[in-house]
Amino acid sequence: MVGRKVFHLLHRSDSSAARVVDGLLLLVILLSVAALALNTVDDVSRDYGDWLEAIQLCALIIFCVEYVLRVWSAAYDPDKSPSRGIARFVFSGYGLIDLAAILPSFLESAGFVSLRCIRLLRIFRVLRVARFASSFDRLARVLRRKAPDLLTFAFLALIIMLVSAVGIYYAEHDAQPKVFSSIPECLWWAIVTLTTVGYGDSYPITPGGKLFTSVILLLGLAIVAVPTGIIASGLTEDARDTRRQSE
Amino acid sequence: MVGRKVFHLLHRSDSSAARVVDGLLLLVILLSVAALALNTVDDVSRDYGDWLEAIQLCALIIFCVEYVLRVWSAAYDPDKSPSRGIARFVFSGYGLIDLAAILPSFLESAGFVSLRCIRLLRIFRVLRVARFASSFDRLARVLRRKAPDLLTFAFLALIIMLVSAVGIYYAEHDAQPKVFSSIPECLWWAIVTLTTVGYGDSYPITPGGKLFTSVILLLGLAIVAVPTGIIASGLTEDARDTRRQSE
Amino acid sequence: MVGRKVFHLLHRSDSSAARVVDGLLLLVILLSVAALALNTVDDVSRDYGDWLEAIQLCALIIFCVEYVLRVWSAAYDPDKSPSRGIARFVFSGYGLIDLAAILPSFLESAGFVSLRCIRLLRIFRVLRVARFASSFDRLARVLRRKAPDLLTFAFLALIIMLVSAVGIYYAEHDAQPKVFSSIPECLWWAIVTLTTVGYGDSYPITPGGKLFTSVILLLGLAIVAVPTGIIASGLTEDARDTRRQSE
Amino acid sequence: MVGRKVFHLLHRSDSSAARVVDGLLLLVILLSVAALALNTVDDVSRDYGDWLEAIQLCALIIFCVEYVLRVWSAAYDPDKSPSRGIARFVFSGYGLIDLAAILPSFLESAGFVSLRCIRLLRIFRVLRVARFASSFDRLARVLRRKAPDLLTFAFLALIIMLVSAVGIYYAEHDAQPKVFSSIPECLWWAIVTLTTVGYGDSYPITPGGKLFTSVILLLGLAIVAVPTGIIASGLTEDARDTRRQSE
Repeated sequence: MVGRKVFHLLHRSDSSAARVVDGLLLLVILLSVAALALNTVDDVSRDYGDWLEAIQLCALIIFCVEYVLRVWSAAYDPDKSPSRGIARFVFSGYGLIDLAAILPSFLESAGFVSLRCIRLLRIFRVLRVARFASSFDRLARVLRRKAPDLLTFAFLALIIMLVSAVGIYYAEHDAQPKVFSSIPECLWWAIVTLTTVGYGDSYPITPGGKLFTSVILLLGLAIVAVPTGIIASGLTEDARDTRRQSE
Repeated sequence: MVGRKVFHLLHRSDSSAARVVDGLLLLVILLSVAALALNTVDDVSRDYGDWLEAIQLCALIIFCVEYVLRVWSAAYDPDKSPSRGIARFVFSGYGLIDLAAILPSFLESAGFVSLRCIRLLRIFRVLRVARFASSFDRLARVLRRKAPDLLTFAFLALIIMLVSAVGIYYAEHDAQPKVFSSIPECLWWAIVTLTTVGYGDSYPITPGGKLFTSVILLLGLAIVAVPTGIIASGLTEDARDTRRQSE
Repeated sequence: MVGRKVFHLLHRSDSSAARVVDGLLLLVILLSVAALALNTVDDVSRDYGDWLEAIQLCALIIFCVEYVLRVWSAAYDPDKSPSRGIARFVFSGYGLIDLAAILPSFLESAGFVSLRCIRLLRIFRVLRVARFASSFDRLARVLRRKAPDLLTFAFLALIIMLVSAVGIYYAEHDAQPKVFSSIPECLWWAIVTLTTVGYGDSYPITPGGKLFTSVILLLGLAIVAVPTGIIASGLTEDARDTRRQSE
Repeated sequence: MVGRKVFHLLHRSDSSAARVVDGLLLLVILLSVAALALNTVDDVSRDYGDWLEAIQLCALIIFCVEYVLRVWSAAYDPDKSPSRGIARFVFSGYGLIDLAAILPSFLESAGFVSLRCIRLLRIFRVLRVARFASSFDRLARVLRRKAPDLLTFAFLALIIMLVSAVGIYYAEHDAQPKVFSSIPECLWWAIVTLTTVGYGDSYPITPGGKLFTSVILLLGLAIVAVPTGIIASGLTEDARDTRRQSE
């Protein structure tokens, strides 16, 4: 009956013991990410590098033990046959994230040290934290429900950005051949401008380019406004549906 | 009966064959736009320029064949007389976009090579993609329904921008005669500031100008907030109306 | 009965003739503002200055005639005594804007030419355009209804901005004594940052200042989010109330 | 019965006399903060420093008298025993803010002059002003009700920011080793970018970095959109609940 108990501890968050385990794992994830981030600061790395490496190693061991336990205990799912329970966990979203969190470290220690980028994949351990948030479901449900509207809008936004990029290329290429050197470069300008970030690394200087940008910017407001409206309306509808079902 | 079949394939998206044709055309449009954009990058243009030109030529031929087929098959509309069906398609929004997507290339090959701007009009081919999105109608319906509110707001926004431009001209013209050289130039600053882009190419440096901008900026928040509120409220109302009609 | 007719033409927009007059006056206002703005551009002013001055003079004469007619015809309000009708118009919002649009020009021609700022007050003529928008009432009603919420929020925003200014002053004053020289100067930074404009004329460079700004910025999102939410909710409620009254 | 009267004057805002006292105290707080802020401007401090110090001293005395009166009168709460009434006020949110507003000045005059930061804590006096706003409750209620959603979203936003920081570190560290020197430094970039502030002190210059930032920015729009949607939906629900209760 140990398997059944571990299953409930790791796969069902319905007991106080399971919540303690969840909290501890969240702490390990945050510590591991903090150690990864701080180790890129030169001063900190020189003085505390060994400690930070030790924290990351400990976290890796804990994640490995946790993953093995999760796979093993998944066989004790009362609603599934053992092989089905394991397969279901391994190929679920959380199972893949758990694997992605430990696999890079093994690849690295197997000789691929030079692939520094792989080490950085460890950050995806953070995504496992989403497991701990319960009201995340509500947000995900609204986003899924409004996915067609959001995708259509994203499509429209991309068309507006493409048209902006081509327009500014024509208006500014001759005046600033280095800044607006090509349409992909102009697309970068269009995205930075229409999301209202506006770094200031590229902006129009000709009267024509400024006039074109002014018109595009007033459309850019809609780029911020429409998805907000879609999400606000989706949340309002969701709250009403929930209320009606409970009545 | 070939005409009737082509009509359903190109003018009605209700069969799986029609959806395959739609998907292929979307792919051609995207490839064509990507080729147009990449050809403006010097390095890519030098090495792969011929291939990119070939892709654009192929796309042009496909668009021409498609346009001719659409016009021809429009005569087989069962609800219209042949001439009416053709006229209806040619002068519809999509028909004009289709024409605008192929016409510039012919003008260009007819000797107007120097008119580079016309080549760039090809980008409007992208707008034809809107045809493929079905939930676009919902968004368009809400925008049309809220058009009076959005226009009134746009009018108010323009007044605020004009007042900002005149105010900053008076406050900063003496301190920065080059940056805030004229009211149209100040209008550029007002638009960049009130849409919260803030490139950093022009900003007030005098205490008076900063105080004036602070007040204007707090109004500028409303410029972002009001259209979002209008669209969110419009989407909520639209969802409720749809629900009531289905009850 | 001429007075009664002029009254309906200028004070009631319920006939097609009144709408034509409104449209013509809107055109004159826009022309007058455009002439004022373009006259500050050096090149345009040198070549076309006389024409632009002439347009502004014509507009001034039209505005004066219009104002006199409005005051005179206000006496023919059927619901009011003549003196009350005139007093009501002169001291109404529109009456004061109309006066503000013509008064500065007389002061200027009376010798106060050096007071260039007064000339710029002419821009307020634009505000009269609001008279032409009918759906502006709806927006104004929602804003008035939500005024207590919006004011409370504006108050909270000001407190957040003050706290941000004092915090950044303490964090960055020693590192950048010129940029963050005083708390009013820091308040300018706080407003530019929290409205997400971010010109780039002042930003923190110390680790403490960056950490403080990061925390403040996540609050700054709320500064954009809350008024939008208030207005969106107000518009939704207003639409529901209107619907209920019509049922 | 003086105690009872003072209790109603300071702890219940239900009489016109109490509202006058509230208004006067608000004025003193604003004057005190303005004096604190202006005293950091060198020119003003040199010329009017003594006056500004005098205003702050007067405000301090008024705050002390007010605090003593509030504590003393809290004993006359008709619903509580004297000791309970005092304890309740002293440890309430407002009681602690009132204490925090006067304590730093005493610490300072007791020799800790060098701790300039403590002086700046006076700004928290401003927070007492919240007491005067009654519709603040509504906003606070909605925020509290939507707290789980807002926290979940804040958590998601942090994950997106962390992933952005790690991604840009990998993409830009080699090209700009000084600007993107470490992951914490990249986190600063991620926050400034995703809140759409975009100072322009750090931005990607490599094609890979720009592509990555473009993708991240389109997600960044959601960072602005989701909390707005949550708050808008919360306010709409709150208004409906209030309406139902009154029906």
